[in-house]
Parts: sequence; C-alpha cells; structure tokens
Amino acid sequence: MGTFHVELKKTVDDSYEIEVGRSLADRLAKDLEHGLAGSLRRFALITDSNVERLYAEPVRDRLLAAGFEGEIFSFPAGEKSKTRETKAEIEDRMLEAGYRRDCFVLAVGGGVVSDLAGFLAGTYGRGVPFINYATTLLAAADASVGGKTAVDTPLATNLIGLFNQPKKVYIDIDCWSTLPVREISSGLAETVKHACLADAEFFVYLEEEMENILNGADRPCEHMARRNCEIKYQVVMKDERETGLREVLNLGHTVGRAIETLSGYRLLHGEAVSIGLNAAYSLSVYMGYATEEEAGRVRALLKRAGLPVGIPGYIDREALVRKLYTDKKVRNGRLRFVIPKGIGAVVEFRPGVFAEEVSEETARMIILGMETER
Amino acid sequence: MGTFHVELKKTVDDSYEIEVGRSLADRLAKDLEHGLAGSLRRFALITDSNVERLYAEPVRDRLLAAGFEGEIFSFPAGEKSKTRETKAEIEDRMLEAGYRRDCFVLAVGGGVVSDLAGFLAGTYGRGVPFINYATTLLAAADASVGGKTAVDTPLATNLIGLFNQPKKVYIDIDCWSTLPVREISSGLAETVKHACLADAEFFVYLEEEMENILNGADRPCEHMARRNCEIKYQVVMKDERETGLREVLNLGHTVGRAIETLSGYRLLHGEAVSIGLNAAYSLSVYMGYATEEEAGRVRALLKRAGLPVGIPGYIDREALVRKLYTDKKVRNGRLRFVIPKGIGAVVEFRPGVFAEEVSEETARMIILGMETER
Repeated sequence: MGTFHVELKKTVDDSYEIEVGRSLADRLAKDLEHGLAGSLRRFALITDSNVERLYAEPVRDRLLAAGFEGEIFSFPAGEKSKTRETKAEIEDRMLEAGYRRDCFVLAVGGGVVSDLAGFLAGTYGRGVPFINYATTLLAAADASVGGKTAVDTPLATNLIGLFNQPKKVYIDIDCWSTLPVREISSGLAETVKHACLADAEFFVYLEEEMENILNGADRPCEHMARRNCEIKYQVVMKDERETGLREVLNLGHTVGRAIETLSGYRLLHGEAVSIGLNAAYSLSVYMGYATEEEAGRVRALLKRAGLPVGIPGYIDREALVRKLYTDKKVRNGRLRFVIPKGIGAVVEFRPGVFAEEVSEETARMIILGMETER
Repeated sequence: MGTFHVELKKTVDDSYEIEVGRSLADRLAKDLEHGLAGSLRRFALITDSNVERLYAEPVRDRLLAAGFEGEIFSFPAGEKSKTRETKAEIEDRMLEAGYRRDCFVLAVGGGVVSDLAGFLAGTYGRGVPFINYATTLLAAADASVGGKTAVDTPLATNLIGLFNQPKKVYIDIDCWSTLPVREISSGLAETVKHACLADAEFFVYLEEEMENILNGADRPCEHMARRNCEIKYQVVMKDERETGLREVLNLGHTVGRAIETLSGYRLLHGEAVSIGLNAAYSLSVYMGYATEEEAGRVRALLKRAGLPVGIPGYIDREALVRKLYTDKKVRNGRLRFVIPKGIGAVVEFRPGVFAEEVSEETARMIILGMETER
C-alpha cells in the first residue's frame, strides 16, 4: 500500500579533548563549570573498590565543593565485575537514588571502570553525557580513544556494548604512582602493541626508556600517554565502526581475549594481550612477514615490561583453540588474525583488509608451539 | 601537560523506509536480496510466544527459502518480558548458537518485541543492523518512528535503552486480523494520542471511522497507519534526542507509565496511556487549556475504542502520585506534564518548551478526582 520515507541524515559532532597531566580534579571541576556537561549539575561517579578511596572520593569532594551534587557508585575491582549484572545493579542503585535523565556519568578508574561506565551512560535514560577520568595506564592507552564500551558475558568478552564517545578524557599520570606494578605492566602491553602496529620509532623509544617508564619518570610517561592516543586516534579517526583499518588494533587480541576468558580473569587484560602479541608474532614469522629477530625483540620488550609471553600451564591449549571462535573477527565461521609486518606496521592483505583468514590447523600449531609460562 | 583534540565530526544517514501493506514477508526477502542488511546473510529473528507460530515462522521460512540462514529466538509474550534479563538470555542463546557481529536482527512482533530487539541489536557486538516487522497496531503507531528502544526495570519503565534506527519498518496490516480485541484497542490509544496532540482533523476522522477501524477495514486502517507515522515523524524529525518538542509524544504518559508499572502490567501499555490521556485532559481543563466538552469527546472516543479511562480499583492512588516521580520528564525533583491545548495541539509554555512543572498537590487532586474503572 505504499512506503513512507523517514529522512534522518544529519551531522553529528562527537569531538572531544584528551588532557594529559597530574592531579586533574581541579581542571575537571573548572571544565564542568564552563559547561562540559551542559547545564547538568548532578553526577553519578562510577568507580571500583581499588580506586574509590584513593581517587574517586577526592574527585567527588572537589565537585561537591564546586556546587555539583552526586554520589559514588562503586563495584568490586577486577575484570570479573565487567558484566551485565554489575551494570544492572548500578542502574538500580542510581534509579533508587532518584537519578533520571538529568545527570551525567563520570568514570574514575581504569579500563574496566571506563568500559562499564561508558556503556551504562550510553543506555541510562537512552544516553546521558559521559566523562572519563582515567587513573591507569591501560585506560590511558586503551580506553581513551575509540569510544568502545562493553561488558563481558560467560561466552565472550566485550561483545555486548556500544560506541559511546566521552565528552572529555582526563589522563592523570599522578594516579599511576599508586598502581601495583602488575597493573603498570598490564597497561604497557597495549602500548607495546601500538608501537608494533604503527610506529617503529616509538618501539625503539620504549626499548630505551622502559625502566624510566616503570619508575614513573615525567617525560617518558607523558610522551607515552600522548603517543598512545595519537596512534589510536590515527587508526580510529579513519574507521570509527571497526570495519577494516580499525581491526589493526585487534593485534594480539585474537589469542589474547581467548586466554583472558579461559584464565577466568586470573590474567589481567594486558597480560593476556602480551601473550597474544607474542602469538601474533609467531604466526607472522611462520607466514614470512616478520623475522625471528623482530619477534625476539618484541618478546624481550614485553618481558622487560614485566609481562608474560608464554601460555600459563593451567590453560588447556585445545580449549584455547576452540575459544578462538568466539572472537569478534570471526566471519562465516572462519578465524581471522591481524598479522604484524615486522615492527611498526601490519599486513594489508587487500586494500582496506587487515585481518586474514588463518586455518584452525595453523592456529593450533602456533599455540601448541608456544612456551609455557612459569 | 597539554591536551589532545579528537576530531569526530561526521555526517550520518539513518534514513529508512516504512512500508505499509499486507503479507510483507515476500517484500522483506526481496529487500534483503537487494542489500537491506548489506552483505550479511545470517539473521536472528526475535519474537514472542504469541507471534512465533502465526507470523515469525512463516517469515523465517520465507528467508530460509531465499537462501538466508538464521533462527528464531522467542520469549514469553507480554510487557513483563521486556527486561534486562530477557535481553541477556537472548544474547546468551545467540552467543551459544555462534552469532557474532556478522548478523542482523529482525524483530517480528509488537511493541515489546521491537523495543527489546531494537535495544539488543544496538548493543550486540556494539551494534548490528536492525529490521522491524511490526505485527500490531501499537507497534505501527508507537515503535515504527523515533528509534526509541528500551527495557523496563523494577523501578522504572523504558529507562534503560538507546536510540537505534531500524534499516526498515514493515507494517503488516494482515497481522492485525488475528490480534485479540484488547490488543487492537491498546494500539488505538497511541493513535488517539497522536490525533489529540497534532491533528484535529484526524481526530474527527477517528470519531467517524472508529467502528470500521475496529473491524479491520482496508482504507481506514491504512490511512490510520500512515497518519500515525506522519505525525510521529513530524515531531521526531525536528527533535531526535527528545529535548523539547519530542516531549509532546509523552502526552498521557506521565500518569500512564506510572499506572502501567503499578498495575504489575495487568494493564496493557495502551490501556495505561488511555487513562493517562484522560488524566492529562482533566489537568488541561483545570489549567484552562481545554474545555469540558473537548475532554468529554476524548474520553468518549477512547471508550469507543474499547479503552479504560478510569483508574483501576486495585491501584492505590497515593502510590500512583509517588510513582509519578520516576517519570523521565522529572527535572530537579519536580513533576512535569505535557498539556493538551483543546484537541489537535499541545501547549507551548515557552519557545520550544512543551512540558510544564505541575505541583504534587495539583497532580494529586487530578488523580483523586478521576473515576474508578469497573
């Protein structure tokens, strides 16, 4: 009986600033006073049990002092909390506290907090403004650019979520000083990944400065935070929906995510990515895109960053092969990998195609060939 | 230490077609063959237990015959199923069946199905294409334009969700013939609401054709489906984010949603909206924006459509007053109502402001003054 055309073409501007610095709570309060969240005065500060006392409470107090109102919604720290259930629980607590659509969400924490809070902000009242205050290196490296938010489910990590761009990201380097060494190392995995896929010079810089970075030295930390954002931005800007180019950021994540899930989150995300990065280099050497020497340099740098490169003994390698099929890059039931091309680039298999099918047999061979992490 | 600008300005085109007709499964299959879901071949057909046998299975079979692959994910019919838990359960079943991001979601059903499936599609793999095959009048009137998707929580209806525009909407009038009379009536509430807020002529048309519409006559049903889309489109097009103008669609929903929740979903959505619409007219008469005669015409039309206009005896009216505060329009803890201006318009209180603060005392007086539905 006929059709009716709904015209919905429009220009959207999701641009935002990333600020790298130390003790940025004052800056946040000033930005909010200048309209960062529009006219909204009520915040829901989402954080985890590790960060709550150290950073979330001071940030909350600063905002209350500036005349904003709001409270802290905290959940137990760890990737295990990054679930639909935690999201629902915080939603219910916010609803109970009377939050409707007249609020903004402020994430204060690492990658888990920003993933969960960004997803929650995107669906609370069908979307309220979201501000990201990153307290870990991993959050700075991974969660500050790209707008990807998600939770894990029993069957897959990061598969339920949405793209939600923050109004602003604060990367507070001061917070890194209180991070456990293991967390710092975990964050460095994404940094090494960025260098591997896009910037050979940055890789050399990391080789030179790794100890200074681990010690929290000013200049190297700042340079690293900035370079992470730049690399990720260059990739993401060109491909917001992760159709082609953006898949390069998945380097190391095919095996990494599977190991992370199978470890029951005993491994931190970065630790799993480190192992996955090593696997990707083994695959690359096998396929002729990297030399043994290059793979060795990557492995050495990861180890110096305090990261594992072998597969933990408690992980069943056949189960790991099966788990690879839950990867988001799987198409028509076939495994696909991003393959590094030496150090500082990835293989472009066809124009705009950066992930290539790899047979299960090859994947199994690579996985069985990897050393066992003690 | 400096800021980094992430530039994310872009043009998005979410335009789509609404097709009104009879037996549209063939049309859907043809559209898919012509790239409605891009190159994707795998569908997740989401439906409910009422619609599954009648319409979902024939649609599925038609798509399988056209060479697509996929299966039905069904949940128990009713607003009670429109929850985060049902969404999570379907996600898990899809993950188990191997669905990743290489699929599209097809909703076949009424408003509950399209709300839930649209939300699910928007967060599955951070968003897969969504197609809406509407089998009820309510879905045609309410869910076909606007992109609003959501689920209910114990504390509020429709507060967790997102804006997700479908690739196409099919309004299959044939399906209405098998709807229970109560469902047809429920769908008519949104239709009457549309007439009340935007089109006096359409209101007169409904007064003239109500019996023919209830009998499923071709021309009036088609005209009604079309006019519903047009009215909603005119409003939504101008204000996709529901900041000002779009709030007019909330006419009757302040009291309506609260009653719906308090009834434990014994009332259908449209039935609750009908009661809420009557409340809005009582308020309008009290405020001097409508005459008793106009309010009487609206009440009479709702009754002829088979809808309740009084508050069910089992609902505690004080609890209802308190429940009003869970409304999305609440700002700074104050109730806000959309007020009809006679028949065919709403009051614009200030430029672009269509919802006005109403004191709790006034809201209570209106609610206490309403008749009890037998």
